[in-house]
Amino acid sequence: MNVILSLRVLGVLLLFLAAALLLPIPFSLYYHDGAAVSLLLSAVVTFVAGIGLVLCCKSDRELSVREGFAIVTFGWVFYAIFGALPFLFSGAIPGVIDALFETMSGFTTTGATILKDIEAVPQSLLLWRALTHWLGGMGIIVLSLAILPMLGVGGMQLFKAEVPGPTADRLKPRIQDTAKLLWVVYVILTGAETVLLMLGGMNFYEALCHAFATLATGGFSTRNASVGAYQSAYIDWVVIVFMFLAGANFSLHYHALRGRLRGYWRSEEFRIYLGIVFGSIFLMVIINQGGTLGSWLDNLRHSSFQAVSIMTTTGFGTADYEQWPVLAQYLLVALMFVGGCAGSTGGGIKVARILLLFKHAHVQLFKLIHPRAVRIVKLGETPVDREVMQSILGFFALFIGVFVIASFLMAASGMDIISGGAAVIATLSNIGPGLGSVGPVDNYSHIAPFGKMVLFTCMLLGRLELFTVLVLIFPSFWRK
Amino acid sequence: MNVILSLRVLGVLLLFLAAALLLPIPFSLYYHDGAAVSLLLSAVVTFVAGIGLVLCCKSDRELSVREGFAIVTFGWVFYAIFGALPFLFSGAIPGVIDALFETMSGFTTTGATILKDIEAVPQSLLLWRALTHWLGGMGIIVLSLAILPMLGVGGMQLFKAEVPGPTADRLKPRIQDTAKLLWVVYVILTGAETVLLMLGGMNFYEALCHAFATLATGGFSTRNASVGAYQSAYIDWVVIVFMFLAGANFSLHYHALRGRLRGYWRSEEFRIYLGIVFGSIFLMVIINQGGTLGSWLDNLRHSSFQAVSIMTTTGFGTADYEQWPVLAQYLLVALMFVGGCAGSTGGGIKVARILLLFKHAHVQLFKLIHPRAVRIVKLGETPVDREVMQSILGFFALFIGVFVIASFLMAASGMDIISGGAAVIATLSNIGPGLGSVGPVDNYSHIAPFGKMVLFTCMLLGRLELFTVLVLIFPSFWRK
Repeated sequence: MNVILSLRVLGVLLLFLAAALLLPIPFSLYYHDGAAVSLLLSAVVTFVAGIGLVLCCKSDRELSVREGFAIVTFGWVFYAIFGALPFLFSGAIPGVIDALFETMSGFTTTGATILKDIEAVPQSLLLWRALTHWLGGMGIIVLSLAILPMLGVGGMQLFKAEVPGPTADRLKPRIQDTAKLLWVVYVILTGAETVLLMLGGMNFYEALCHAFATLATGGFSTRNASVGAYQSAYIDWVVIVFMFLAGANFSLHYHALRGRLRGYWRSEEFRIYLGIVFGSIFLMVIINQGGTLGSWLDNLRHSSFQAVSIMTTTGFGTADYEQWPVLAQYLLVALMFVGGCAGSTGGGIKVARILLLFKHAHVQLFKLIHPRAVRIVKLGETPVDREVMQSILGFFALFIGVFVIASFLMAASGMDIISGGAAVIATLSNIGPGLGSVGPVDNYSHIAPFGKMVLFTCMLLGRLELFTVLVLIFPSFWRK
Repeated sequence: MNVILSLRVLGVLLLFLAAALLLPIPFSLYYHDGAAVSLLLSAVVTFVAGIGLVLCCKSDRELSVREGFAIVTFGWVFYAIFGALPFLFSGAIPGVIDALFETMSGFTTTGATILKDIEAVPQSLLLWRALTHWLGGMGIIVLSLAILPMLGVGGMQLFKAEVPGPTADRLKPRIQDTAKLLWVVYVILTGAETVLLMLGGMNFYEALCHAFATLATGGFSTRNASVGAYQSAYIDWVVIVFMFLAGANFSLHYHALRGRLRGYWRSEEFRIYLGIVFGSIFLMVIINQGGTLGSWLDNLRHSSFQAVSIMTTTGFGTADYEQWPVLAQYLLVALMFVGGCAGSTGGGIKVARILLLFKHAHVQLFKLIHPRAVRIVKLGETPVDREVMQSILGFFALFIGVFVIASFLMAASGMDIISGGAAVIATLSNIGPGLGSVGPVDNYSHIAPFGKMVLFTCMLLGRLELFTVLVLIFPSFWRK
């Protein structure tokens, strides 16, 4: 591990963050919300820290795989720390742990909030909060489609973005090319949603915040009642469509924008994703029919919204699903574990992994009957390499293991079984709302500081596909 | 699949069951409980069915692997059907579904009951109920240590009993030899516990019933308050020790009885089993200290009893753990998934599989840092074959998958999330009591018939290590 080089790169990342911290300032001045100084001060502190690291840590080595792990993990941690400054300086969030929780929730595109009254927070800080989602989402797209495949994490090799451009063996140029192309897609979709939301009556500021939170599958809203506050079927459907898009592999969108629409249908993961979404909506509409959701059309809208919001791990809400029949709630819990597609901004185990787990189990059963038959697991037309399959199986075991241990720690922090378990999966899958005391109409403020730190870790672990963080525990990682 | 041959073997198994149905009759006559005629009639019906199958289905072929799967699965189903007859004939359990549930719960050594007032049932029928456990346990020992390893199910090859005797390739003689030796151990331990319980004040009948239920890690008691009814520290500790023994690999006991005690310590699974048991007890004592369990010594006794009872999947009770702190309950839920050792009468995922999952995940992490290093997962000194590891990973995925789907079906049957999920894991891991409306002081009578059939299936699936039952779904299994 080359610590110097890693710190230098982290310094560069902080310079980007400093620039990003300036963006909400015009909004602050426009709305006279009094947070401009806090934002400016945060930008200065972050800039100084960044420039300090860049100047002090000189290294002309190339990045290797190990530094990759360290930079990704500490990149997110640094962003959570420095990104929390505006909340602390302005006093919008007084506690350090709360501010860290909120910012990590932003950058990991989780959307779990400790704010009791969101609408009391200055507009520019809510924009910053939405921007943490959007920047986090940018990071995730590149991470999952360019960096993690190179690091060999959790089978992500399978879902990498195959983009044109130089394919040198060195880490940097390849990533930069891939990043640029994917970010174009990301920006176009964000712009499109912003315009569509404004057509539905939102002002530019609200539309931008919600588009940021949607494309990142984050879920921070500017309203206490989330998207439900707008009481607009049009807005709900726009958000549903963009949540769905954000939960799909962004390299498919890239190809689609270049005219190759057939890529969607060719992707087995996308087909299964579509199938799960439609299947869940279908079941949920049946379960909710005649219940609290009113007419058939309203039922369809709210069932679709909640199903897509949870499955894509966005976490926006238009209805309190805790008032729904148990069966509908159970379905939502199952969707929490599944999550979005690999290469999307969504979290969770990911559709492709769940699909491959089923295929693996199927092959194991088949082998019992036909011991000499050779059967290889495929994703679409691609045979899945044995090592990749091992990695996916390891990921699944780790995911369940982390869920069990973290839930135990939440019970130790004083939460009941349902709320504690739901808080863990809602953060580990980067969703936001859970069940019980962290349900869709509640927030995370009441949790003990110890519990908040556990969930902080869960957000990070889930967002970085577990492996990326957990390798840092090995002493041998740090040697040499 | 040779259906004729399978039916013939099932016929032979029914003849054994008919003989077993006669055993409680002397108790019925001694207690004048009026159930002797029902038992005799059940034996006659079972005998006629058995002899009918043996006479009609003639085949001189050797058993192959496929017939193995069919015989094991349908063996348990046939036993549940014919074993339910005494309950139905006597009217002790009037409903067919209830009687099937109770008997499957017996033969799968689960111990989940639909009886609201156990003490109102004739003694001889309670003995029959305990005997279903004991016979099921006998079946499980042979199944897990001789049959499943040969069938290649779920990595059971790793834990097979290496017993002396002919090692022909054909299925039958090998199994018979292994079975005899292991059953000697089983009978000796049952006898020892019966004697020790009688020394604690139980009469022969009660001692025998509880020994049957302990060695099989079943959990059916003759009392409404389970083992807690005796209010005896001595009895509690005797049961704790024998539950612990029943949850360990029986081939270790076999070697111990031949003087090779060191085998326990040499077995990595046993060491981890011991560690989990002591660790859980330790934690639980701390959590429960100052609570409802009274003195330090009573706390130790009740914490140990409940921890060992749940971990070994026995399900006896001396305290209502739903009154305990959430953390203690959470610990018990985690133990429900772990279960006993492979080759024991305990259910669940099994200690060895959990251990190997952790090792696999560890190797996956290690590989990220050292991509060229070769690391093989070992159990003790034995390298774990790749295929075996694949099978274990497939088992884990299937176990979680079955848990999720069955919990959904329980929610569909009208249960709340906690009770439904707990009912599934309590039956899938063959434990008995769960949480919520199926907690340690409740029973399964209130569940809808559809839900009971789901749990019936869970008991069978869990007991036969999933694969054994699920292969029967493949159409290609039945071909030729």
